[in-house]
Amino acid sequence: MDAVYPMGRENILMVPGPTNVPERVLKAMVRPLISHRGPEFRELYGRLLENLKKVFQTGGDVYPLTASGTGGVECALGNLVSPGEPVITVHFGLFGERMREAVVRLGGRPVEVASEWGEAPSLEQVKEALDLNPEARLITIVYNETSTGVAWRMLPELGRLARSRDKILVVDAVSALAGEPLPVDQWNIDVCVAGSQKCLACPPGLSLISVNERAYQALRENKHRLFYFDLEAHRRFAERKETPFTPAVPLFYALDEALQLLFEEGLENRIKRHAACAQAFYEAFDRVGLETISKGSLRSNTLIAVWNPPRVDGDEMRRMAKEGFGVVIGGGAGKLKGKSFRIGSMGMVSLREVSLTLRAVFESLKKLNFSFKEKPERVLEEVEGKLEEALRKLPKLRLS
Amino acid sequence: MDAVYPMGRENILMVPGPTNVPERVLKAMVRPLISHRGPEFRELYGRLLENLKKVFQTGGDVYPLTASGTGGVECALGNLVSPGEPVITVHFGLFGERMREAVVRLGGRPVEVASEWGEAPSLEQVKEALDLNPEARLITIVYNETSTGVAWRMLPELGRLARSRDKILVVDAVSALAGEPLPVDQWNIDVCVAGSQKCLACPPGLSLISVNERAYQALRENKHRLFYFDLEAHRRFAERKETPFTPAVPLFYALDEALQLLFEEGLENRIKRHAACAQAFYEAFDRVGLETISKGSLRSNTLIAVWNPPRVDGDEMRRMAKEGFGVVIGGGAGKLKGKSFRIGSMGMVSLREVSLTLRAVFESLKKLNFSFKEKPERVLEEVEGKLEEALRKLPKLRLS
Repeated sequence: MDAVYPMGRENILMVPGPTNVPERVLKAMVRPLISHRGPEFRELYGRLLENLKKVFQTGGDVYPLTASGTGGVECALGNLVSPGEPVITVHFGLFGERMREAVVRLGGRPVEVASEWGEAPSLEQVKEALDLNPEARLITIVYNETSTGVAWRMLPELGRLARSRDKILVVDAVSALAGEPLPVDQWNIDVCVAGSQKCLACPPGLSLISVNERAYQALRENKHRLFYFDLEAHRRFAERKETPFTPAVPLFYALDEALQLLFEEGLENRIKRHAACAQAFYEAFDRVGLETISKGSLRSNTLIAVWNPPRVDGDEMRRMAKEGFGVVIGGGAGKLKGKSFRIGSMGMVSLREVSLTLRAVFESLKKLNFSFKEKPERVLEEVEGKLEEALRKLPKLRLS
Repeated sequence: MDAVYPMGRENILMVPGPTNVPERVLKAMVRPLISHRGPEFRELYGRLLENLKKVFQTGGDVYPLTASGTGGVECALGNLVSPGEPVITVHFGLFGERMREAVVRLGGRPVEVASEWGEAPSLEQVKEALDLNPEARLITIVYNETSTGVAWRMLPELGRLARSRDKILVVDAVSALAGEPLPVDQWNIDVCVAGSQKCLACPPGLSLISVNERAYQALRENKHRLFYFDLEAHRRFAERKETPFTPAVPLFYALDEALQLLFEEGLENRIKRHAACAQAFYEAFDRVGLETISKGSLRSNTLIAVWNPPRVDGDEMRRMAKEGFGVVIGGGAGKLKGKSFRIGSMGMVSLREVSLTLRAVFESLKKLNFSFKEKPERVLEEVEGKLEEALRKLPKLRLS
């Protein structure tokens, strides 16, 4: 697959979202506007609702919200959390802590199941919290922690546990959907939130939220609901293929096109492509002696977080990568700011992006006197060869 | 001014938003994406923050939110309303009732100052409510009621009253900004909410919210704040020209371009253009015997709401206007559904749009056997002549 970027692009974005948006998706936004109370919109929205179900692999509903990922998280929690109620909040990084904070804002009482950043809590810890707080109705967790590059791989087990205890499982999968496996129904996830600007390679501005019947029932019992983010209103209006409030029509056009592209590739293939690209980064960094924050099976398919090497200024490295190579890399998030850098390997990433990024990182680190464990040129060549091999099995895509 | 529409447009949108977006604004969305934590975004956002202050005529802050107008209203109220507190809610249509409903959802206790739809409460009614509820801190009102075409023309007086009683005045000006006079500071408005997709002629998906120091102080005292819509977080991040959460970058590009276009025209001129177009509609409808919902000085510059004539199916008229003339007109809202139609005369409206719309309405009504009080051809000719004369004094615009 060759990457084709829109006119005028100078930099490639390897930040944790927004990601590089293919030309055909960008161009879709320029279609003339339509009334969101007319037949043209109902056709578009109806198709989006059906297609999003396929991406989430759910028989429940999935709504695109005019809001970014955090708005989607607020929607999920605002519909479900009642003042005073205990909520099991599983967290191990900045975005998990944000979910916890949103619970607090809504008047909920978080029961924290936490670990150090870069690690992840065990299922046993969740069980203990549930045992000690039988009145808790909700469990919240971030699937793929964008601050540390940790993907929590026990979601299937957590889903079974939640279902067996009759709890509602709310998953922030903003940076995971279409980059990590996520069969929402099979894994017993009741509410799942994703973003448009990550692995779907759509522009930022939309959040996607899935809701099943169990979640609808739970939120109906909750009197303290939001207005703009009211999921029952979304359900009511979706019956006639409309949104309760004015939608960001150009972004809906873009999402429609991005989903077409996703189906042309195939959801499984897209996840494989993300895994292959991430694998290339991990192998390259391991071999030259750069330490990633997440280890082993916790390593994310979509976000590679790396400790700044001793005596190397990571922010300076990022500046050099951007100015010298046009590669924009993310800085550390939250308390890892100034201590790490983050590569968002999401959306339309392929050989070109991985190669350019590795070259940019290695060349910049050379100038900053990083002492490479293995010769970077050889590592790059071998990693590129393997990635090329892996990608050869995947479909070629039409991006423009 | 000649209207130039983007490629492929078939219909002109005369609904209460979204409005017709000029080609140059649509095209701005196709610029390559940028990281919202990088210098390119900070330059864009810094410019937006400054330019929005000019449009709101305020020394306070104005934030573009990734959400539509109702999201902006929820932001305003969610930051300010504490559970149990009385809130003076002035309402006279669907959108005012929505503000009231949002207050209820947030746990506030609305003190209703209401009138029949199509009319408007008096300032005296507000005073009485304030006298009876001295502990109320907030007054909410919709400036331009999109469901009835009523513009509440006593905002300056209401602002003085609110300030003299030390109340916080929250105004929903979603369909008014840049179409009706709205000097936020001069009128003592503490929080003002607008939308991107109305008179600014930008695509839908952004809400704009102004906040002054009095409002910041009031919301700091409120413990029950939202997360995604947290105005203090917006203020904190704005110091370094960033948004707290991922913004809808393509819509920010579009807004930037739409504001440039607004400044080329001049805010005063844009309001004059809206007034002239609305005047043409009102004169034409009065003369042929179509009854508008709002009367006299309550008539809005941007939304013309009309009762369906006796024995005429307004929805059928709208269908004919769309199919025969490519003119999309809005239906009645809320309890006026099936009883009225609504023309959104906002954004890039000019002679062409007004003429086409009037022609579409008149020709369709002819086929539906409406009995015209005055000959529609003559009315059309004279109204067009006057509008042309009025528009001649206004600047020509570059729309593509």
